[in-house]
Amino acid sequence: MTVNTSTRRDHIEEARRQWITHGWDGAAPGMAAVTTIVRVNQILVARVEDALAPFGLSFARFEILRLLGFTRKGMLPMGKISDRLQVHPASVTSAVKRLEREGLITRRNDSADNRIVLAELKPEGRAVLRPATEAVNRVFLDLGIGRDEVEKLIRLVAPIRDQAGDFGAPD
Amino acid sequence: MTVNTSTRRDHIEEARRQWITHGWDGAAPGMAAVTTIVRVNQILVARVEDALAPFGLSFARFEILRLLGFTRKGMLPMGKISDRLQVHPASVTSAVKRLEREGLITRRNDSADNRIVLAELKPEGRAVLRPATEAVNRVFLDLGIGRDEVEKLIRLVAPIRDQAGDFGAPD
Repeated sequence: MTVNTSTRRDHIEEARRQWITHGWDGAAPGMAAVTTIVRVNQILVARVEDALAPFGLSFARFEILRLLGFTRKGMLPMGKISDRLQVHPASVTSAVKRLEREGLITRRNDSADNRIVLAELKPEGRAVLRPATEAVNRVFLDLGIGRDEVEKLIRLVAPIRDQAGDFGAPD
Repeated sequence: MTVNTSTRRDHIEEARRQWITHGWDGAAPGMAAVTTIVRVNQILVARVEDALAPFGLSFARFEILRLLGFTRKGMLPMGKISDRLQVHPASVTSAVKRLEREGLITRRNDSADNRIVLAELKPEGRAVLRPATEAVNRVFLDLGIGRDEVEKLIRLVAPIRDQAGDFGAPD
């Protein structure tokens, strides 16, 4: 799976050469890495969204359904959804409202604490979740890089996630 | 920079365990990798956008200005901007219109071919480009992973970009 970029056209490597030409040598690799991540994110999210399109789901809405599906009662407070998926509460609210309009979940106040809004999976949501999960799993099964590379990738960027607080407080 | 995720909280590793519990072992690493890319993209883009906020620029609008700034005449056809930045033409149009409203670029038809719309950097655009580039370069200088890791990361995901046609036709 080696890609010879030296004799082929790569807009990101062209940008890196521009950076170096302008004397920004120190920042050039970081620029190339960030631009690469942005591009690979775009490619992979497009693959997942193509797989989900037949179910009328976006990646974000799928993740909410999937998270609810993993819980014992198919139910979670909105705040917990935002926390677990590391998505802004306003984005969760907007996605949950859309899922509710589409008849896949319901929202209601927690009977024990009226300030808490719960999102709850409806049978219709559970029904779409099974084939939607199978569809995204076909994407996940083969990303186009080897199994070892997948694990290396996850480990390589872990310090970036760590700096953003993704692993909580250090022990 | 090793992160011990075994004794700390990691929502992505929790999702991977759920995947395995449900028997989707084969898809679990790919799910973790895609979710990791989505998260790291979110973290890095937020850093860049924070750096650009004082200049009223998004990452996308900065990239357009930067690309124009690299050309000899500070000018490119809209189609070429979309091609180089690997961004949908509609997104380029919307970003360029905003840059025009903000007085940083102008749009005009190519005198040689009236069907071609050119985006041209104004002196005001060039003036903001210098400090904005310095600001993003401060982000790029230290992503939080080592220089070798940066290059490894770029190489690891190259096959994914290759499948999306990023390197053009093979030799």
